[in-house]
Amino acid sequence: MFESAEIGHSIDKETYEKAVLELREALLEAQFELKQQARFPVIILINGIEGAGKGETVKLLNEWMDPRLIHVESFLLPTDEELSRPPQWRFWRKLPAKGQTGIFFGNWYSQMLHARVEGDIKDGRFDQAIDFAERFERMLCDEGALIFKFWFHLSKKQLKQRLKDLEKDPQRSWKLNPLDWKQSETYDRFVRFGERMLRRTSRDYAPWYVVEGVDENYRSLSVGRIILEGLQAALKRKDRPVLQPHAAPLVSSLDNRGLLSSLDLSLKLSKDDYREQLDAEQARLAGLMRDKRFREHALMAVFEGNDAAGKGGAIRRVTGALDPRQYRTVPIAAPTEEERAQPYLWRFWRHVPPRRQFTIFDRSWYGRVLVERVEGFCSEADWLRAYSEINDYEEQLHDHGIVVVKFWLSIDKDEQMRRFKEREETSFKRYKITDEDWRNRDKWDLYVDAVGDMVDRTSTELAPWTLIEANDKRYARVKVLRTLNDALERAFKKG
Amino acid sequence: MFESAEIGHSIDKETYEKAVLELREALLEAQFELKQQARFPVIILINGIEGAGKGETVKLLNEWMDPRLIHVESFLLPTDEELSRPPQWRFWRKLPAKGQTGIFFGNWYSQMLHARVEGDIKDGRFDQAIDFAERFERMLCDEGALIFKFWFHLSKKQLKQRLKDLEKDPQRSWKLNPLDWKQSETYDRFVRFGERMLRRTSRDYAPWYVVEGVDENYRSLSVGRIILEGLQAALKRKDRPVLQPHAAPLVSSLDNRGLLSSLDLSLKLSKDDYREQLDAEQARLAGLMRDKRFREHALMAVFEGNDAAGKGGAIRRVTGALDPRQYRTVPIAAPTEEERAQPYLWRFWRHVPPRRQFTIFDRSWYGRVLVERVEGFCSEADWLRAYSEINDYEEQLHDHGIVVVKFWLSIDKDEQMRRFKEREETSFKRYKITDEDWRNRDKWDLYVDAVGDMVDRTSTELAPWTLIEANDKRYARVKVLRTLNDALERAFKKG
Repeated sequence: MFESAEIGHSIDKETYEKAVLELREALLEAQFELKQQARFPVIILINGIEGAGKGETVKLLNEWMDPRLIHVESFLLPTDEELSRPPQWRFWRKLPAKGQTGIFFGNWYSQMLHARVEGDIKDGRFDQAIDFAERFERMLCDEGALIFKFWFHLSKKQLKQRLKDLEKDPQRSWKLNPLDWKQSETYDRFVRFGERMLRRTSRDYAPWYVVEGVDENYRSLSVGRIILEGLQAALKRKDRPVLQPHAAPLVSSLDNRGLLSSLDLSLKLSKDDYREQLDAEQARLAGLMRDKRFREHALMAVFEGNDAAGKGGAIRRVTGALDPRQYRTVPIAAPTEEERAQPYLWRFWRHVPPRRQFTIFDRSWYGRVLVERVEGFCSEADWLRAYSEINDYEEQLHDHGIVVVKFWLSIDKDEQMRRFKEREETSFKRYKITDEDWRNRDKWDLYVDAVGDMVDRTSTELAPWTLIEANDKRYARVKVLRTLNDALERAFKKG
Repeated sequence: MFESAEIGHSIDKETYEKAVLELREALLEAQFELKQQARFPVIILINGIEGAGKGETVKLLNEWMDPRLIHVESFLLPTDEELSRPPQWRFWRKLPAKGQTGIFFGNWYSQMLHARVEGDIKDGRFDQAIDFAERFERMLCDEGALIFKFWFHLSKKQLKQRLKDLEKDPQRSWKLNPLDWKQSETYDRFVRFGERMLRRTSRDYAPWYVVEGVDENYRSLSVGRIILEGLQAALKRKDRPVLQPHAAPLVSSLDNRGLLSSLDLSLKLSKDDYREQLDAEQARLAGLMRDKRFREHALMAVFEGNDAAGKGGAIRRVTGALDPRQYRTVPIAAPTEEERAQPYLWRFWRHVPPRRQFTIFDRSWYGRVLVERVEGFCSEADWLRAYSEINDYEEQLHDHGIVVVKFWLSIDKDEQMRRFKEREETSFKRYKITDEDWRNRDKWDLYVDAVGDMVDRTSTELAPWTLIEANDKRYARVKVLRTLNDALERAFKKG
């Protein structure tokens, strides 16, 4: 969920300054229009890692926008008056009016997350707080509110650097840290519980936006753009108040760097190394699946990737090691008539393996947010809500002990062209290349966006995505097998 | 929540037999149309008290409808295959296809409720199960499903009678009772946790219908009618799948008996009794509000009722006993400009009292489901979702220790006419009667429906409605005071 906010996004000064001028003007204009229409309020929630620029961004937004139409609320220690009333009262009293914008700093999410990280509450109470947030936001959106939820992120390494810099700066080191961020465990818990919170409360009508906080220019511009685009879209939709999904795409990377482009596709394995490692990992997989502890588990592997990225070959290397009674491969094509008469996820639920079994999905339920999104086979509302439906699905699998491993096999455009041509030239491979493959290739950039959103919104601790550098087939196959084995071992350790 | 399913509804044989003929024909026709359109499935969930006719009703529905288009699932003990997969799998595999109807007996609700009643799970896990149900149904409805949720109800007394009858009948006494219903505590827990479950999962797009189970004719006809009306409405709306509220009104009582008509409005107090009891209850209230234990609480009283039912007079008898620094009266009229710029409940949140204080609402947040519903001041979707928003609101008040007491002051039509005329004839009362009062009177029956739905959907253990027989002002005033005092004492005992 935080993957693409840990790759070191940045924007140079010149680009930033040029973009900011336009952005500020457009924001002021949208804000004015919001006031004129006075149909709905805007609520901006600021959360995330300490030191990732939450305060600075709020300060900036305040500078950029008309201060008469925006107000910042901090919700630090409750006042006597607030303590004497239900905890939700303090949020209600500070809600922005229609036409106004409220920035909520230290909101309901910060409170529940801090309480959970510090151990003041356990999972049960945490889930109840999450449930409150969901109901509250649903009501606000039903009443017309436009809600933006930002999570400012830093990787652990980035955070450590940030803390060092802060220490050197006596002007800022006095800052109160309610959590002891120097402890590595604090970060881990914050991110783990934070992920649960984001996953459960990200809704099409009130999604979370994860923003990498390291580079100030990137961070500021991203937040400004997301608000601008969402606001402009909402101002155009005159049929509000009605529960409306946010504008898509969810986040377009401003510096044109995404998770996929940050992969090192030159990674490769020599023939000898490949032979050796493949044998070792295959043996390891066979052993793990015979392990007594596997009786309490099952395994599901999802293979997605570019056309011609080598999904089939990778799958064969996985199954090559196994007893055919232990696994099944499910190729996902167009749904059957029976499947079309059911909710979207039904055709994947039916293939959920029983304990001790392994099911391999050659393409999967992610079709909805990939091909169906890109080709317009379903409505925007449908694929936008699919992220949380999929997360719910995978959580149910995980809770039952099923190990879910998801692969995106990534090749670059040149490599794809080489393979397409090779297929056309090789008679026994010719059936593998169709007009559709060429058409998909034309939509390369749309798929890049879709994959980015997919990984951001569905890579969770329970069911993480693994991106596979697949320009070299040997490297890819070994990494797939090793990832499966590592996932199984981790699950066995947890029990 | 169960009040209007404990008043002894019944329908005589002749009326029943005539109505059933028409109903069956219409149901078959709707079912056929459902099959033709094949746009969405129908899912009927059967829950409630043992012996309230769940099985019999399912049997009947099966007889009435085309068996090729309907299937009943029991979900009793899970099979080996089911146990080997996530618990949700068994529900997914039995989902009806578009155009089909599935009756789910022993569904996700029965399972969580039994587990909670038997103490296998605690509140935290119970709430998580509730949360699952919400997400699952939300997804199903997003995918187009039409869901009916029935709770078959018996009062404790009715259940005892039913158990006695069953014992006499050797053919049926063998029936397995997973819960020991003979224990009075079982019933109490079942109803208490059941209420929490219904309250949290009743949504405009998938509401609960509570049906009194004592009289077979009434029960069968009610269920049939609810399904028919909901199905016909859904078949007409060609824009599905989109999250749609069910058809309103929510339940029209088939035997023309509602909670209001079951009140005994002839109840009265003599002048002497009144004097004595009023003094006593006023003193009691003053004492309770000075009680040390009140420091941990606050009190909110809601006064709703027919025009001229005596709200003002009753409120004055309450405040007559009190120190003016301890209470505030909030008369609710049309919202101010500031209030209109906020979500509906905002103007009530702002008046939530701090601890040790008492706020009296002369009309209240129930305006949305009363006058706004009847007059069309808000959309049907707005007032339909208001029930669960209000329940959330009152739960938050309750959780903070606020005692919430809600009164509906009820008079009959003749008594209202008498009072209207009296007001017109008395110079100092003339300001109290307006054209609007006469117009409201014309909508008497619509208000009866609205009050019935309101009590059914928002009378909860946390914040119950009290219906006040108000034809006799003396009786009404004393009952109001006594109810307040009893509520405070109960809260003090619980701590």
